[in-house]
Amino acid sequence: MITGVPGYLRHSGKNQKVILLKMNKTTGKKIWAIAEGYIPDWSNGPEPQMLSHETACLLNTSKQEAHIEITIYFSDRDPAGPYKLTIPAERTQHIRFNNLENPEPIPRDTDYASVIESDVPIIVQHSRLDSRQAENALLTTIAYSE
Amino acid sequence: MITGVPGYLRHSGKNQKVILLKMNKTTGKKIWAIAEGYIPDWSNGPEPQMLSHETACLLNTSKQEAHIEITIYFSDRDPAGPYKLTIPAERTQHIRFNNLENPEPIPRDTDYASVIESDVPIIVQHSRLDSRQAENALLTTIAYSE
Amino acid sequence: MITGVPGYLRHSGKNQKVILLKMNKTTGKKIWAIAEGYIPDWSNGPEPQMLSHETACLLNTSKQEAHIEITIYFSDRDPAGPYKLTIPAERTQHIRFNNLENPEPIPRDTDYASVIESDVPIIVQHSRLDSRQAENALLTTIAYSE
Amino acid sequence: MITGVPGYLRHSGKNQKVILLKMNKTTGKKIWAIAEGYIPDWSNGPEPQMLSHETACLLNTSKQEAHIEITIYFSDRDPAGPYKLTIPAERTQHIRFNNLENPEPIPRDTDYASVIESDVPIIVQHSRLDSRQAENALLTTIAYSE
Repeated sequence: MITGVPGYLRHSGKNQKVILLKMNKTTGKKIWAIAEGYIPDWSNGPEPQMLSHETACLLNTSKQEAHIEITIYFSDRDPAGPYKLTIPAERTQHIRFNNLENPEPIPRDTDYASVIESDVPIIVQHSRLDSRQAENALLTTIAYSE
Repeated sequence: MITGVPGYLRHSGKNQKVILLKMNKTTGKKIWAIAEGYIPDWSNGPEPQMLSHETACLLNTSKQEAHIEITIYFSDRDPAGPYKLTIPAERTQHIRFNNLENPEPIPRDTDYASVIESDVPIIVQHSRLDSRQAENALLTTIAYSE
Repeated sequence: MITGVPGYLRHSGKNQKVILLKMNKTTGKKIWAIAEGYIPDWSNGPEPQMLSHETACLLNTSKQEAHIEITIYFSDRDPAGPYKLTIPAERTQHIRFNNLENPEPIPRDTDYASVIESDVPIIVQHSRLDSRQAENALLTTIAYSE
Repeated sequence: MITGVPGYLRHSGKNQKVILLKMNKTTGKKIWAIAEGYIPDWSNGPEPQMLSHETACLLNTSKQEAHIEITIYFSDRDPAGPYKLTIPAERTQHIRFNNLENPEPIPRDTDYASVIESDVPIIVQHSRLDSRQAENALLTTIAYSE
């Protein structure tokens, strides 16, 4: 989503690069989904770095605050949420699902999924540190967006 | 895919957020593919959490049941399937390929790939826990959609 | 890319599902890219499963053979290739970059990237097993497509 | 983005494959984002291979140099950058965020995110080797593009 891009930028030459920060431009989408969700039930290693955790990394490149709502889906009950967050302009926040408490904590050792909605375009990436065994395991993926 | 979004939501102000659950809206796509598939042949650690497994995480955010068909492709034989599943409205299911039995189980230690089709839009994410060695390894990715 | 979808399928009711295999339909894209490439130089554990390897998982859901060409890019020399492969109709092949020999093997412990082109639409996923230390590590991602 | 594709290629027969390197064709996008960023603070194993690192793998398949600018976003301060890089025509570079020094190094053990802009289309993939514990962990994902 590009707004207010001056015409000369569309025709910029080889030595004239686009500077994102100087434009009224935002990168991203308003609806994201993470179909894989699971908070392991135990950990090994020093906390907080090595505590097993599930994270949604949110990036707001816009000049406005992003108002976020997260909905959590389960296999056997109605969805929980919305969990409300605000991300300041030009900031990233790496949200640990472990820390979401309001309206209710997310149960451990339980399959879930999430939908993340924002009123300005953002970027969402999903990751997990699993330290249930002596050595940690990591996963990440860009989330689904539309 | 958005249906029946009231006009005021398209013009919602900074403090008025979109609530997904209150709308007749669905998020996702109807055709998904996972080109990487492999069920390891052995495991370490307590079951069922630490049993090596290959998972398709399916999320149905719609108000309708999703009827799913999975087709499994191999390197040296005709495809297997369809494997049929139903996901209730507003639910997620994390399907272990290990547990697909009908029309036939998926062989272990064998390369495969999968196509997942649904009659309503869904979101699909692929993940694997590999516990063949003492410490588990994890991978995940959003699946290909169209 | 959908061809020859009968009209009744577009209006199929709740209990009438789309069967991919029965249609002249193909899923995927013709150009894919994997920017991350690296074949580790040593391994631990039983071969071939635990040999460190870098894989492109290719899925051809069409009714035709797919003719594939892979080009390998480096940081400090001209590209290598094309490496030519054929994937039969309705088959998957999990190609280990370690095994590409013609026109030249891919060097170990060297950064590279790849572009994969096909004459019919396919799906490509990238994965790696790294067994340089005692416990294996895994990564995967859907490739970039256009 | 395809330019100058000769007409016969659009109608190429089953045995006539598209050769990317012989055309004035570029693959990719000009804006990429990685919402997950984190450089671990300690490592195990032989360097440089086993040093914990965070990487952006950049692939420039075009016939022109790509001029790249990276902006780093944080949770609690203004963005840093732009970090400027040049990738020669038909080359890949696997950039370690650890090594970005100008205008300022990226702090360790700190959440960040990045936006990568290029004046020609490129492909970007994100990966990390985490060797804080005895066994290394890996993650990767295609970045978000638009």
